[in-house]
Amino acid sequence: MTVSTQTTVTVLGLGAMGRSLAAAFVAAGHPTTVWNRSPGKDADLVARGATSAATVEEAVRASTLVVACLFDHGSVHEVLDSVGEWPADHALVNLTSTEPAGARELAEWAAGLGIPYLDGGIMATPAMIGRPGSALLYSGSSAVFQTYRETLEILGTAEYFGSDAGRASVVDFALLSGMYVMFAGYYHGAAMVRDIGMSAEEFSNRAASWLAAVLPSLPAAGAQIDTGDYSEVLQPLTFTKAALDAIVSASRDAGVDLDIIGPVRDLVDRQIAAGHGAQSSERAFESLNPRPRTAA
Amino acid sequence: MTVSTQTTVTVLGLGAMGRSLAAAFVAAGHPTTVWNRSPGKDADLVARGATSAATVEEAVRASTLVVACLFDHGSVHEVLDSVGEWPADHALVNLTSTEPAGARELAEWAAGLGIPYLDGGIMATPAMIGRPGSALLYSGSSAVFQTYRETLEILGTAEYFGSDAGRASVVDFALLSGMYVMFAGYYHGAAMVRDIGMSAEEFSNRAASWLAAVLPSLPAAGAQIDTGDYSEVLQPLTFTKAALDAIVSASRDAGVDLDIIGPVRDLVDRQIAAGHGAQSSERAFESLNPRPRTAA
Repeated sequence: MTVSTQTTVTVLGLGAMGRSLAAAFVAAGHPTTVWNRSPGKDADLVARGATSAATVEEAVRASTLVVACLFDHGSVHEVLDSVGEWPADHALVNLTSTEPAGARELAEWAAGLGIPYLDGGIMATPAMIGRPGSALLYSGSSAVFQTYRETLEILGTAEYFGSDAGRASVVDFALLSGMYVMFAGYYHGAAMVRDIGMSAEEFSNRAASWLAAVLPSLPAAGAQIDTGDYSEVLQPLTFTKAALDAIVSASRDAGVDLDIIGPVRDLVDRQIAAGHGAQSSERAFESLNPRPRTAA
Repeated sequence: MTVSTQTTVTVLGLGAMGRSLAAAFVAAGHPTTVWNRSPGKDADLVARGATSAATVEEAVRASTLVVACLFDHGSVHEVLDSVGEWPADHALVNLTSTEPAGARELAEWAAGLGIPYLDGGIMATPAMIGRPGSALLYSGSSAVFQTYRETLEILGTAEYFGSDAGRASVVDFALLSGMYVMFAGYYHGAAMVRDIGMSAEEFSNRAASWLAAVLPSLPAAGAQIDTGDYSEVLQPLTFTKAALDAIVSASRDAGVDLDIIGPVRDLVDRQIAAGHGAQSSERAFESLNPRPRTAA
C-alpha cells in the first residue's frame, strides 16, 4: 500500500454524512469514486469532480481506500456481501455507526476474506467534517490506520484505539449516549420554560451557555468515580435529591412529563436508600451498576 | 433605599454556596453579616472581616440587603418565620433553590409582612461565584432588583425576568434539569467505557470536548421546536432510532443498566409509532407532552 495525495478513495453510501465525507476527499484533491444504492444522490459530487460508480463492485475496484458510510451494521453486509472478489490490498474503513459487537463481527468477516479492515466512529455532524472540532475514532487494523492516516485526517483528527475493532465503537457510542441524553435534558428544559412563554430557541442559547459553563466540572467527577470513594463531598446526595425533587415537582406544575427527569432522580434516590446520602452526588453513577473497574 | 459600596449585606445560610456568596461580598468591601443555624461555619469569613450574628433577628437587622441561601423552601420559612419584626425597607433576596410555586408562596408571604422580596436562581457552582460565567436570574420586586443590582452583580451577571416571583425559578430549574440530565448521560457513557478499561476521568475529558462541540446545534433545534413543524429534516427520527437501538444494545453488552438511555430511546420510539419516522429528530421533544405554545 502506498500513499500520496493521489490515494484513490471510494465512498459507499451517500446520506448526509457520506456526501460530506466524499466532498472533503474531493476538495483535498483525491480521485474519489462514489456509490449509493438509490440513484440521484451523487449529482453535486460528480459536478465537483467525483466519479459515479454504477455498481458496488466497480466502486470497490476503483480505489485502494474504500470508506463505507451506510445506514447500519446490517446494510454493510447487504452492500458488501454482493462483492464477488475483493481487490487485493484494497482496505475497508467502516464509518457506518456500528455497535462494538457488530464492528467485531465485521472485522472477522473481513479477515475471512482477506480484507484489511479498520472500524471508525465519527464524532462530528456532517457540517463539521473537515473542520476544526471534527474527530474520528478508529480501531482494528493498525496497518490500515498507519497507511491511510494522512488521508483520513482530511475528515477530522484521527485517533487509534487498538487492534480490537470494537474499541473505537465503545468510545463512540459512549460519547453519543452523552449527546442524546443531553439533548433529551434540553428538551425537558425547553418544555418547562414553554410554560412561561419562553421560546425553545431563547432557551437553547441559555442552555448552551450554561451547559458549557458546567462541562469543565466533569473531570473532577470522573476522578472521583475512578476511585470509587465518594467520601470527599462536592455536593451531597441529599442536596441533589432536594434539588431533583423540586425540579420534578416544578416539571409537573409546568405540565411536562417525567420520562427523562424521573429516572435521573431515581439514580440519586437509590444511593440514598442504600444509606449513602451524606456522600458525594457523583455516587449516582453507581446506580447504573457498571462492571467493577478493571485495568485497561 | 440608598446604595453605595457601603450597602450592608447579610447572608443567611453558610453552606458551600452561602459561604461563597458571603466571601464575594466581603471581598468587594461590603460590610457583611453572616448567620448559620449550626455554628462553626463562619470562622473563615469572620477572619476576612465578616461579622457573625448570634441570631437570625440580629442578622436581619444588621443589613438593608438580606440574602438567604438555605437548604430548601421549607428551611426559608423555618428560619424567617421566627423573625418577630422585619426591619422597615430591609429587602429579602432569596437565593435558596426554590421551585416556582415556592417562590410565589414566599413572595405572597413577604408581601403580607411588607418585606420587599426578590427571588433568584444561581446558575453557578460555589467556585464560580464572582467569576466570569457566573449568572444569576431574578424575578419579583423590580424595586429591589434596581436598588441592589450593582451589589448583586458582584456575584455574577444579574438578569431580571419580571414581577412574577416564580419566573426566574422556572428558567433556573429548566437549566438545572438540563445539567442533571447531562450529568446522567455522562455517567452512562463513563459506565460504558469502563468495559474497555478507559477511566472515567479520561472519558470526562473526551465527553467535555464532544458535548461542547455539539452544543452550538441547540439553537437550530430550538427554532424547529418553536415552529412545531418537523418536516425540514436535519436527522430523521428513523436514523436516530437506529443509533439509539445500537447504543442500547451496546450498553447491555457493556453491562450498563438502561435506566437513563432507555427513556431517551422511548421518546424517539413514540414519535415513530405515531407515524412521524421520516420527520426530524427534534420531534422527540413532543413526546414530553409539553403544553401548547402560547405567547409570552
